[in-house]
Amino acid sequence: MPIELAARYGAWALIAGASEGLGAALGAEAAARGLNVVAVARRGGLLEEQAERWRGRSRAKVRTVVADFAAPDFWPALAAATDDLEIGVLVWNATFPARGRFFDVTLGDHLTGIDVNCRAPTILCHELGRRMLARRRGAIALITSLGALQGLRLFASYGASKAYDWILAEGLWDELREQGIDVVSYVVGATATPAFSDHADREAAQAALSSEDLADPETALAFRLQHPMAPEAVARGLFEALAAGPRAFSDPLDRQTAESLARLPRERAVRAMGDVVSRVFHALETKRGDGGS
Amino acid sequence: MPIELAARYGAWALIAGASEGLGAALGAEAAARGLNVVAVARRGGLLEEQAERWRGRSRAKVRTVVADFAAPDFWPALAAATDDLEIGVLVWNATFPARGRFFDVTLGDHLTGIDVNCRAPTILCHELGRRMLARRRGAIALITSLGALQGLRLFASYGASKAYDWILAEGLWDELREQGIDVVSYVVGATATPAFSDHADREAAQAALSSEDLADPETALAFRLQHPMAPEAVARGLFEALAAGPRAFSDPLDRQTAESLARLPRERAVRAMGDVVSRVFHALETKRGDGGS
Repeated sequence: MPIELAARYGAWALIAGASEGLGAALGAEAAARGLNVVAVARRGGLLEEQAERWRGRSRAKVRTVVADFAAPDFWPALAAATDDLEIGVLVWNATFPARGRFFDVTLGDHLTGIDVNCRAPTILCHELGRRMLARRRGAIALITSLGALQGLRLFASYGASKAYDWILAEGLWDELREQGIDVVSYVVGATATPAFSDHADREAAQAALSSEDLADPETALAFRLQHPMAPEAVARGLFEALAAGPRAFSDPLDRQTAESLARLPRERAVRAMGDVVSRVFHALETKRGDGGS
Repeated sequence: MPIELAARYGAWALIAGASEGLGAALGAEAAARGLNVVAVARRGGLLEEQAERWRGRSRAKVRTVVADFAAPDFWPALAAATDDLEIGVLVWNATFPARGRFFDVTLGDHLTGIDVNCRAPTILCHELGRRMLARRRGAIALITSLGALQGLRLFASYGASKAYDWILAEGLWDELREQGIDVVSYVVGATATPAFSDHADREAAQAALSSEDLADPETALAFRLQHPMAPEAVARGLFEALAAGPRAFSDPLDRQTAESLARLPRERAVRAMGDVVSRVFHALETKRGDGGS
């Protein structure tokens, strides 16, 4: 089983956004599954700490590369640092979540979100995917969010940019499925990462539980925000889902919630997601209604 | 009825991407409904021709502004050219559709698609929307595509970028619906514009009609590609749908198709769309399988 991924796709996995939270779990999981790891993020010190941990627990080679995916020209240096490797698996996990009401967030932050969440994965898919295509093997996983399947209050441009990743992965899945390359849009619900814990109010999520019926999407969303998944479980699910495209979910509950939301009238789906998000991320609502001026 | 929109939202509509096809129809429709029009596009000559036509048929004032939405700094000049106007309605119609298999399209074209389809509407929503919020009235319509609701073969990054517009509009709808601002994601199916006619093979669409049952989404998609809507009808639908967010469709058939596709297993939805698109846009498939090298 561990050797399978390297034999099928190539020896190295590139984890984009690997310094903490889900990214750190993804690097550990890749190493445990017999892949060597290129770990990319902005913070080199943190990255090296993670790399040491993965090396200590597995026989994987780990190379760390410092890169800022918000920089328009991040690719040449990253290419130079990895050109000697066969990168068989690309996992896009880096993210810039512009948070707050749309007009409270600066335009600059919205645009940085587009650079990181849309532009950078497009560059990596094109550059690394082209090499995979020439070898007729490889796998690409773009991580997206349950919140991106409908408009997302308090994270409007973030949700939109993750919808970009979702639909890009599905389109690539369709184009590449007969070329030996697996692509999956991996939809993640609330995950217990530092980014989540710093902003979400889990007691408010408890209060939002309107019933005990998890088939009710609003209840299921509140439940998940109160019980965020462990990054390790989300990471495990991703490597198990590489060939399960076009779209896979980190958890059956999130799949069920997404399918329920998709069947609702659109207004209700957007409001259901928004009402739970407002309650749990109420700290982001402070400037509500002042016009952001 | 004609005066209603100007009284409700403000006197001027800004149509982004107004020089031909649907954009020209949108300008004409806005003028016919009593709105003054700021028409924006790259080609000034064409824009002036359209403006003359609209002026001749209505009492609307029309101002044309030449701008390239692919330019990172298009906004200051556009702002300066419109600062004296109350822009009450923003219609985002400009688009850059990178066409062809993902690796046959240059990375530069994919990124231009992100600049035009994601970055530019985010800038306009933020800049013009902020002014609407200060006035507590306005309307924003972002045009997206039926093809963007699932991965889109031959248009992978284009579909993704229109998914950005779709989800951005829905998120803004949710944040602004109690602030006097209507936002709608307006989903358009195949429309008889120059961009469509130059690339689509309608005979192939006829051949793709696998049954007469328009409840079958693949049949409905082929039917629509064989019978693209008139731009005038799509434009009329948009102005009627301004307050019908979060999501509205240019035609009941397209709504029905979208809802059918959303209920299918994801793999089938993506393939159904892809199979019809491949057949009708087969000219874009020429380099298929050569790895784009």
